[in-house]
Amino acid sequence: MQKVAVLGAGSWGTALSIVLADNGHDVRLWTHRKQQADEINTTNTNKRYLQVNLPQQIQAYDDLEKAIDDVSAIVIVVPTKAIREVCSELNEKLRHQPTLIHATKGIEPESLKRVSQLISEEMSTYNYEDIVVLSGPSHAEEVGKRLPTTVTVSSVNEQNATFTQDLFINESFRVYTSTDMVGIELGGALKNIIALGAGISDGLGYGDNAKAALITRGLAEITRLGVSLGASPLTFLGLPGVGDLIVTCTSSHSRNWRAGNLLGKGHKLDDVLEQMGMAVEGVRTTKAANQFAREQQIEMPITNGLHQVLFNDKKPRDVVDQLMNRSKREEMDDLAAFIRTDFRD
Amino acid sequence: MQKVAVLGAGSWGTALSIVLADNGHDVRLWTHRKQQADEINTTNTNKRYLQVNLPQQIQAYDDLEKAIDDVSAIVIVVPTKAIREVCSELNEKLRHQPTLIHATKGIEPESLKRVSQLISEEMSTYNYEDIVVLSGPSHAEEVGKRLPTTVTVSSVNEQNATFTQDLFINESFRVYTSTDMVGIELGGALKNIIALGAGISDGLGYGDNAKAALITRGLAEITRLGVSLGASPLTFLGLPGVGDLIVTCTSSHSRNWRAGNLLGKGHKLDDVLEQMGMAVEGVRTTKAANQFAREQQIEMPITNGLHQVLFNDKKPRDVVDQLMNRSKREEMDDLAAFIRTDFRD
Repeated sequence: MQKVAVLGAGSWGTALSIVLADNGHDVRLWTHRKQQADEINTTNTNKRYLQVNLPQQIQAYDDLEKAIDDVSAIVIVVPTKAIREVCSELNEKLRHQPTLIHATKGIEPESLKRVSQLISEEMSTYNYEDIVVLSGPSHAEEVGKRLPTTVTVSSVNEQNATFTQDLFINESFRVYTSTDMVGIELGGALKNIIALGAGISDGLGYGDNAKAALITRGLAEITRLGVSLGASPLTFLGLPGVGDLIVTCTSSHSRNWRAGNLLGKGHKLDDVLEQMGMAVEGVRTTKAANQFAREQQIEMPITNGLHQVLFNDKKPRDVVDQLMNRSKREEMDDLAAFIRTDFRD
Repeated sequence: MQKVAVLGAGSWGTALSIVLADNGHDVRLWTHRKQQADEINTTNTNKRYLQVNLPQQIQAYDDLEKAIDDVSAIVIVVPTKAIREVCSELNEKLRHQPTLIHATKGIEPESLKRVSQLISEEMSTYNYEDIVVLSGPSHAEEVGKRLPTTVTVSSVNEQNATFTQDLFINESFRVYTSTDMVGIELGGALKNIIALGAGISDGLGYGDNAKAALITRGLAEITRLGVSLGASPLTFLGLPGVGDLIVTCTSSHSRNWRAGNLLGKGHKLDDVLEQMGMAVEGVRTTKAANQFAREQQIEMPITNGLHQVLFNDKKPRDVVDQLMNRSKREEMDDLAAFIRTDFRD
């Protein structure tokens, strides 16, 4: 049994707290909202984020210092845009050296830094090599219901990865380890771009054939970007890549898909974000990836098209039609040539 | 404008006839059932197979000799188990040398031969090199509604492939070419195994997380088998591989998924096949792949588990649970090692 603090009581933080509680750990779930902490502690629910009853071993805190007191691990699950702020506060208040794990899928738009890099920059007593990432095809709702789920953990420090695996693994929550920290983080972040695109295609009333084509090309596109940032292309073929891409693009649980779906139906971005009421990581990630792709001359037609819809008010239908009719004959060959090159590096 | 015969008036044959008719071709749709031919010719519908009105340029025939008279291409779209019989009859009656295209996704169980091999064995005036395959992520229902769809054609004879591309390509039906005939045929056939498995997982009430994991591992597994039979692993990463896998595993249009879904809900194989009333290629393909994998010592745990459900009366839940709990830590590494090996050949 370990004492574990989970920072961030959204859907995924709450679901991971359930896994930890099921494994017998003493879970401290931190939120900056007192009302939410009170709900969790008095009724064992967190209704806005997850429709399940929470185990009693989960205690909520709105005081960060108390939440992290004497824990052996801290799991950071706040939206990417809050990572620096939360970690800066954590850095001030932390008096010991628990294992730092994050389960946030995103990248910083301006710097294109991964979440583990942001954490280590803010935490004076931690190096990048110490941080652990947990990622994979995992809707929080299903994890909350103990439906079978597989995730991957990774850290440059392999002991930290194994410790994290042992902390989370159980019958319905399978945890694999990987040495490709960069790929695991980028796979989880970049698939949200394609999920927005898949949602748009569905929102336009295009069918499964069109969406499958979009996902397949999307996989090639995000692999291309990931590899240029140091990821292994193999990771994109595994659970943190194609697995996460499938689950995010084909399920109405996915908030990035839902946001895209609303865009496809003609809603404007501001309305969509307001309707969602939760972080839609893919929007910021699209901005970041599009900028990087332009600077580095990486071909990312889906990302670029999506960027035009999100930020340049271009019509979704025009962009999807343009993608469908692009490069009539040789696209498969381009994909093949690209991947072959990378695998032969 | 070409005269084209389409042999087989099931869902896919009918959908492809619509594409050809939309492109202005004179389409002769052959079925061995007179009643079905009459329905098509009198009401312009084929209701059992496709819920759309058919263009008037589609003429149905129950006489093979008349259907193929003077055509410049023949598209074979009968179930795999009928390929030899239909081609044997075709061989007797054909007096000229039209381009032979097939769009049937399956392999012969005993021999593990691909459909193009079966065709060339039965057709005395055609070599294997002449045959063209058309395959990809393409539900017939959506093609019938002119929803955007992408497919790939391939032939050892590149001229035949290009001719086929020109025959079918239009605004909503995008046709790419590939030189990997073996991969295109095997991708289309083998994904039906994984679709059955995905249907079972859904039928058991497992969620999207479990299914994504199953699809991801299924992709590695069918790639492994495909490569051992001479396919390029790259094809499995493109539209005819991961694309077709996604569309078949995540859509209720897919009859292989539907058959698996019924199995997962506890129905027996015989009942399921009777309920479906259409060919479920994945059942025969599972038998073929399982036998080959055993002989060649190729690791195919999903195929093997499915084989036990289909033919050894094993409970679906036991098999899926076993797959989920298999090899706790190193499975990702196995996948990586395998793929890396193949790409470095």
